[in-house]
Amino acid sequence: MSDTPDTDNAVRAFVDGHGPAFLDDLSEWLRIPSVSADPAHADDVRRSAQWLVAHLTATGFPVAEIWETPGAPAVFAQWPSGDPDAPTVLVYGHHDVQPAARADGWRTDPFDPVIADGRLHARGAADDKGQVLFHTLGVRAHLAATDRGAPAVNLKLLIEGEEESGSPHFPELIQDRADRLACDTVIVSDTGMWSEDTPTVCTGMRGLTDCQIDLHGPDQDIHSGSFGGAVPNPATEAARLAAALHDADRRVAIPGFYDGVVELTDRERELFAELPFDEAAWLRTAHSHGALGEAGYSTLERIWARPTAEVNGIAGGYQGPGGKTIVPSTAQLKLSFRLVAGQDGEKVQAAVRDWVAARLPAGIRHEITFWGATRPCLTPLDHPALQSVVRAMGRAFGQKVRFTREGGSGPAADLQDVLRAPVLFLGISVPSDGWHAPNEKVELDLLMKGAETAAYLWGDLAENGRA
Amino acid sequence: MSDTPDTDNAVRAFVDGHGPAFLDDLSEWLRIPSVSADPAHADDVRRSAQWLVAHLTATGFPVAEIWETPGAPAVFAQWPSGDPDAPTVLVYGHHDVQPAARADGWRTDPFDPVIADGRLHARGAADDKGQVLFHTLGVRAHLAATDRGAPAVNLKLLIEGEEESGSPHFPELIQDRADRLACDTVIVSDTGMWSEDTPTVCTGMRGLTDCQIDLHGPDQDIHSGSFGGAVPNPATEAARLAAALHDADRRVAIPGFYDGVVELTDRERELFAELPFDEAAWLRTAHSHGALGEAGYSTLERIWARPTAEVNGIAGGYQGPGGKTIVPSTAQLKLSFRLVAGQDGEKVQAAVRDWVAARLPAGIRHEITFWGATRPCLTPLDHPALQSVVRAMGRAFGQKVRFTREGGSGPAADLQDVLRAPVLFLGISVPSDGWHAPNEKVELDLLMKGAETAAYLWGDLAENGRA
Repeated sequence: MSDTPDTDNAVRAFVDGHGPAFLDDLSEWLRIPSVSADPAHADDVRRSAQWLVAHLTATGFPVAEIWETPGAPAVFAQWPSGDPDAPTVLVYGHHDVQPAARADGWRTDPFDPVIADGRLHARGAADDKGQVLFHTLGVRAHLAATDRGAPAVNLKLLIEGEEESGSPHFPELIQDRADRLACDTVIVSDTGMWSEDTPTVCTGMRGLTDCQIDLHGPDQDIHSGSFGGAVPNPATEAARLAAALHDADRRVAIPGFYDGVVELTDRERELFAELPFDEAAWLRTAHSHGALGEAGYSTLERIWARPTAEVNGIAGGYQGPGGKTIVPSTAQLKLSFRLVAGQDGEKVQAAVRDWVAARLPAGIRHEITFWGATRPCLTPLDHPALQSVVRAMGRAFGQKVRFTREGGSGPAADLQDVLRAPVLFLGISVPSDGWHAPNEKVELDLLMKGAETAAYLWGDLAENGRA
Repeated sequence: MSDTPDTDNAVRAFVDGHGPAFLDDLSEWLRIPSVSADPAHADDVRRSAQWLVAHLTATGFPVAEIWETPGAPAVFAQWPSGDPDAPTVLVYGHHDVQPAARADGWRTDPFDPVIADGRLHARGAADDKGQVLFHTLGVRAHLAATDRGAPAVNLKLLIEGEEESGSPHFPELIQDRADRLACDTVIVSDTGMWSEDTPTVCTGMRGLTDCQIDLHGPDQDIHSGSFGGAVPNPATEAARLAAALHDADRRVAIPGFYDGVVELTDRERELFAELPFDEAAWLRTAHSHGALGEAGYSTLERIWARPTAEVNGIAGGYQGPGGKTIVPSTAQLKLSFRLVAGQDGEKVQAAVRDWVAARLPAGIRHEITFWGATRPCLTPLDHPALQSVVRAMGRAFGQKVRFTREGGSGPAADLQDVLRAPVLFLGISVPSDGWHAPNEKVELDLLMKGAETAAYLWGDLAENGRA
């Protein structure tokens, strides 16, 4: 049952042959403006879910259904393997899209897809309808090339309808449906790769916990001439907290913050260093004029693999024009902490609370409010399922596949935690695709390579993918 | 010509005898609502100046005139001594008042003076019409008791009309009129003393320079997940600047900041320590819940005699409800520095500029704007003119006179600088008088002691007051 070079030729032939019809289907779906953030589009989001259910059914999924939430509906589908010992894989994506209007700077109607110069232009082309739909072409290629009636794995799909609105009901949905979502591996198809020339697999995302610290000093603003220099100033104390977040090496200075951090391996550092990273170009995407971060780590290591503390907002005292010689009554600090594998969001919150309480002088009262915590996720380079993804992608692209991580945080970690399964990322979008921006597009060539990768992946995972 | 105990008896008898008529005059003046901050009262401020010119003329001043400014008018008066060698003294006060309305919590009409329980209640009773007018009773008592036709000193008065509006035209006025204002000593009658039971003389005021520092990082707010921890954050840098203002001992940590500072003498520290200071009560007036300041100094020393750095405002990044995981594009810091004798405002500004520039990392651009500088003023305890004020006050109060300083900053320093004369303070107001608050009052007993002090002062200064 192992794949062979003949399999690859058959997959490629199937994808090539069925590509035009697949693009017609994708274009039909992209015409539905499933903007979850806009209540006026609620019916469109529902139509998008219905369209997907019909398409999955037509693809051959024996189960394809709408899962209601208090907000927009998700879609669930399931295609059991014929093999009772087959592992179970859950593919995650979303069918809702960001808002888009011609007036935002689109050269074409964002909801009237246009194919030109090897690209498909439409809102949702890359984020995320294109990357959801290549799985239907992929699974059909997998069946055709390996002459099967059912996939090599038990294949499940969960396609969310509120990702662009912050996934407000997603944690509850997967908690409630954990039994039906049970799986050995999660494949998230909502990310990208390094560039057109450099196929990559993402191996992890950072977690997040953020908070607001309110500091109270004098009961009202007081005169800095009469009282300044003799009573505590909450703006000064907020600044001292924010400044004390980092030591001289820009390491986070909160005791216990790094407890449990999974350090980068030498191999990961080597692999990151091999990526064709252009710091000047990256700084332009960051709209920034200098690189600065934890001593001893490269920029990519800092944003992908190191936990950080960031001041998102600071406020206190007079902010109008000119000067006002007061000691302000209150000050406020908004901080976020990006977490990496091995860190526990609740322990970090406790460490921050202790650290703040210990640093404030008498006469300054404070409150801390944490907004929540998103857990980090990380798959080790030698994880068998990750190796399966790398091999499948390598066969599709005919190139060495490299590794990245994602500095941001997202619902992937919820899947990891609730379903207790490793989360892998299969994305073929590239930075130029323009997520959340006007003139979003997807490269047709990469879309087809995504389908190919999916076609190879299920066989490889069935054979090699168990931890 | 020296004063004798008989002089004191004669002064006291004159003040007692003419007190009721004096209070009638003062009440008449207080009925004019000379609120300089309110354009609707511009005519009242002018009427107040005219009233004062008439009153000074009636008192006997050969010169009493209105000095126009681009804003509200000031009043100038002059009474030359008969003695060609007599020193020249300039008394400073102001005839404008803070706004006041019955609805603010006044128990009586703020512009309909009421005398009850030994107090005169009205807006301006203490700040500053009462303290200006006791000089007319004082000079008459001085003449009557010493049987003179003209004061023992060349007496000048400059009574400003915009002090409660920040004295916007005062520096220009005294520059332009420096010749006519020329004097050996300035007596500022716009302050107070420690308490009813503790007559004090203020020996100095702190100076002030304040600024805004604008920091620019990324050209727009950027995603803290994608970029956080790898580029400089202007809110963090603003906080690091504000936090670095003070060392662990809460001393200002800017190199050169303390250059030239006139340190407290042991004698001054002893005298401050003798004052009946109740820190808990003081904290209540500061609306504060703890004392904190430069190590090694008492609260009074910190607010009166030590230079300070204060964060008046800090702002950067997200300030709305909840969290927003950004690295902000900009941040802003408003700082003020209180200065003491020996410090040079321009040198402090240069030190701050150098310090800021040296501390910011690459990728953070900044601008500093200073709003200006008010110089500190200080008269040494052994200055002959200060000793004259202390003796005069001691004769009036029959008590030991102690010393204070003022932590705030004001136009007194402009007089010192432009006229190159020492500035002394003669004030009989007490903290309970309610400056700028509803139900402002002045203690009648202290008002009469102010007139007595003025009556003794000119003779003493003529004999002993030259530096």
